[in-house]
Amino acid sequence: MKSKAFTAAFAVLLAGCATVDVPPAASAAAPSMSGGERAAPDTMRWLYGSGEAAGASIQAWRQLADYAVSVSRQRKMPESVPLGLPDVEGGIAAPSCVAADGKVKPFAAVFDVDETVLLNTGYEYWQAYSGKPFVAEEWEQWAKGGTGIAAPVPGAVAGLARLREAGITVIFNTNRNSDTAAGTAAAINAAGAGPAVHLENLFLRGDDAMGSRKDGRRATIASKYCVIVLAGDNLGDFADVFNNPDLGIQERRAMVANGDLADLWGAGWFVIPNSAYGAWQKGTIDEVFPPNARWMPSEDGAPAIMNESE
Amino acid sequence: MKSKAFTAAFAVLLAGCATVDVPPAASAAAPSMSGGERAAPDTMRWLYGSGEAAGASIQAWRQLADYAVSVSRQRKMPESVPLGLPDVEGGIAAPSCVAADGKVKPFAAVFDVDETVLLNTGYEYWQAYSGKPFVAEEWEQWAKGGTGIAAPVPGAVAGLARLREAGITVIFNTNRNSDTAAGTAAAINAAGAGPAVHLENLFLRGDDAMGSRKDGRRATIASKYCVIVLAGDNLGDFADVFNNPDLGIQERRAMVANGDLADLWGAGWFVIPNSAYGAWQKGTIDEVFPPNARWMPSEDGAPAIMNESE
Repeated sequence: MKSKAFTAAFAVLLAGCATVDVPPAASAAAPSMSGGERAAPDTMRWLYGSGEAAGASIQAWRQLADYAVSVSRQRKMPESVPLGLPDVEGGIAAPSCVAADGKVKPFAAVFDVDETVLLNTGYEYWQAYSGKPFVAEEWEQWAKGGTGIAAPVPGAVAGLARLREAGITVIFNTNRNSDTAAGTAAAINAAGAGPAVHLENLFLRGDDAMGSRKDGRRATIASKYCVIVLAGDNLGDFADVFNNPDLGIQERRAMVANGDLADLWGAGWFVIPNSAYGAWQKGTIDEVFPPNARWMPSEDGAPAIMNESE
Repeated sequence: MKSKAFTAAFAVLLAGCATVDVPPAASAAAPSMSGGERAAPDTMRWLYGSGEAAGASIQAWRQLADYAVSVSRQRKMPESVPLGLPDVEGGIAAPSCVAADGKVKPFAAVFDVDETVLLNTGYEYWQAYSGKPFVAEEWEQWAKGGTGIAAPVPGAVAGLARLREAGITVIFNTNRNSDTAAGTAAAINAAGAGPAVHLENLFLRGDDAMGSRKDGRRATIASKYCVIVLAGDNLGDFADVFNNPDLGIQERRAMVANGDLADLWGAGWFVIPNSAYGAWQKGTIDEVFPPNARWMPSEDGAPAIMNESE
């Protein structure tokens, strides 16, 4: 068992931090002898340690599988869910589910990978333990070598099995680099979420010229499939327009919390909650809490300072 | 408009932190003139600022309303969802939906309030701005006076309306203190999530002798209603057994991620994701990441250190 053998080796490494038996690599990298005894960040406690997050992802996976199976059984002309696509006005459109030859395209559900299908506990542990920020080279090592350590997101294995049983093609669209394709496919397969085959049902950053923007890959997928489900932990898994750097915090939230797009949550678009990292990691206190959301206590015990102006 | 008047007064207070016009309460409490310009904690960025969290709560509210409406229409003898109840073996049971007089009890859906129905942006803003930990007296002021500032969780107003239209009674079971009942009901009503009436469909800590344990209140509710939905942001909103202090991090998670209880997520039990605070806020790095979830990079660029033992 690869992961068990590793576990034993790793336990020795950790225990060895206080001794002379530490291999050079580990002693150079480990910041202190008690790194693992420090408090974990709340963002990781919730996602990787809590029953609350496990329940949230199980219910989201149940919801998306229920939805997709139900749509796949409808006796009417299939329609695509709206997708982020390049060169489309507004950045989002629902492409036709009829191919150029007049045939109806097969159904597909399109998933992000990290913190949507796989939990990157190994890499996140290393970030917490080392206290380091994101280091691209370390992430690359993890993406190539994390097979068997990365666990499935709770609910994902059962959900993916239900989709495949219903004849819906499962497609992965990730921003891992395309040179990690073999490791990424191996990690997905080892977690019980496969099969994943590069350029068949696994698309990565570098597969086209659009970098981390996923709209081009979505267009490639939609040219062959009728996409009835999009799922991810970041808004960029749904459309690139949400990654516009000019969007303010509240503006970005309002785009998907109000209006037509809000109706897609739970009905074609599905979020897997990820409190650990993401495109939402920005904003000052004032930006996160707009003026009408602010409050402070009064020191004289009056109900609230706002009552002064009533 | 109460909140607008407050907003203006508050903006003056904030702006005034650098001047002599600051009322004593504010100048004593504000830690610096630029408190709101500091980075918000990621836990709050996700929950209160992100489109991802808005989408996650909208989809969860859709899912629970779909589920409850569907169950309420079934032409069969109604069954309660399993609930945490006092003096029951294992701590969780599904009470009968038939009353002592032989009549079928009316349907109810039971909700926690904070970060399930209401977003406590006002109080959380104050915590972020002041840098203070939880202060019971401040929370009490907020619970009594936050009316009109606390916004509904995205999706909650529409979801609650659908339940009420289907004839399902909406009940709130919160650990706010019972002496905040008037303010809590007012906040729920102002957010569009009401009506909430104390001891009719609003139950608080102090309504019985069980303190913050909700099992007794659940039993009181279940004596009159057939509970088909439980929803909350903490496992204690489902059963008190999850708050056993002897439970390890992984043990608590496994209780709801594996086995029979896991099947309830999205099918009677519904989590509203809350990354900002909760009973899950404990645990070291080692506790959150068990040995088989750990990984570290190797410095020589080999795929991963674990391969040494293959």
